[in-house]
Amino acid sequence: MDSVKTSKMQEKREKILESALLLFAEKGYVNTPVREIIDLSGYGTGTFYKYFLNKEDVLKVLLENFLDQIVSAVRDFFRREEDLYVRFIESKRVMLNVFARNQKMSEIYSRVHGINDSIDECLQVFDDHFLYFTSRNIEYGISRGLFRDIPITPVASATLAMINYAVNLWIVKKQISEQEMFDMVISFHHSLAKGIVKDHSRIAQYENI
Amino acid sequence: MDSVKTSKMQEKREKILESALLLFAEKGYVNTPVREIIDLSGYGTGTFYKYFLNKEDVLKVLLENFLDQIVSAVRDFFRREEDLYVRFIESKRVMLNVFARNQKMSEIYSRVHGINDSIDECLQVFDDHFLYFTSRNIEYGISRGLFRDIPITPVASATLAMINYAVNLWIVKKQISEQEMFDMVISFHHSLAKGIVKDHSRIAQYENI
Repeated sequence: MDSVKTSKMQEKREKILESALLLFAEKGYVNTPVREIIDLSGYGTGTFYKYFLNKEDVLKVLLENFLDQIVSAVRDFFRREEDLYVRFIESKRVMLNVFARNQKMSEIYSRVHGINDSIDECLQVFDDHFLYFTSRNIEYGISRGLFRDIPITPVASATLAMINYAVNLWIVKKQISEQEMFDMVISFHHSLAKGIVKDHSRIAQYENI
Repeated sequence: MDSVKTSKMQEKREKILESALLLFAEKGYVNTPVREIIDLSGYGTGTFYKYFLNKEDVLKVLLENFLDQIVSAVRDFFRREEDLYVRFIESKRVMLNVFARNQKMSEIYSRVHGINDSIDECLQVFDDHFLYFTSRNIEYGISRGLFRDIPITPVASATLAMINYAVNLWIVKKQISEQEMFDMVISFHHSLAKGIVKDHSRIAQYENI
């Protein structure tokens, strides 16, 4: 009985999140009253407030779930792929795949930067995760003599900045296609990698795969 | 007489812009009523509307002036410095200097992305200028055999993304100091340059200057 109840609760919570996702993507977070989320979910006001504190809380859960997905995807990829150079380039494709598969969420992510401190903190947790992953990979590369001894944080930050920039051009500004977003980010990482990797024959080897 | 009148008009317009700059930086663009700009300027409502259509028009003029300053600074630097490699790195320091000297304007620039289409268009004109300058420099470098034949747009876009990211960390998030902002952007460009430049002895030569 308890597990039936839990799954029913889970279902309601999911339905509310899904309704918010649709409305935030369509009308924007700021222009969506909590009333409309409740109406679209088909549940009552009491149900909404059983699962969420307010509209901001819903946004935070959506962002956290989405950013967890990206972090998990990169973590899984790192488990499958041990080559640090391939990781450096291809982990960005893995991330972009999560963005491409979740267009509504990508649009929300791209638009909510700077809305308020609490949302920014939530985005900051993701940035920190991303920088940690990327930095660790470069650090390993340096310690194993594959990468030059470059300052790590600026490079990891640049890849984060580049991904946010390309996602925004694709989903908000609509200046580039999904394919162009991938090409832009991956091509940049190839150029950057040539500056980072010591032995360029290593790159030629990878490019011929 | 006409030139006295013109300079008086110029003075009023400047005073209104200055008042808006102070208020936008302190309270944010969205939270600043046009009334307060008028009051702080010390002129009447009629004077305000003689020079500007509305609050948005004031923001656009402020942004245009600021972004023109950056473009001019880079243009001047390119006139003084012909070495394409030095240009690739140091033009970013020249840009960051304009940001550092105009902290209020940097904060406004960093915060107003995505406010509305008309402001975004204004920011887009700047992005296009920046990408044009940066791309042309890389293009010259490739055509003269100094740089590898890399895809240009992704690299130029990454440097734009990186500058916006670093300026935001410095002036909005306050996570890094002004010096750290410079270090982050310049260090990244050194790492990237190693991937772009064909002859690395050329880099060693520059680093010893």
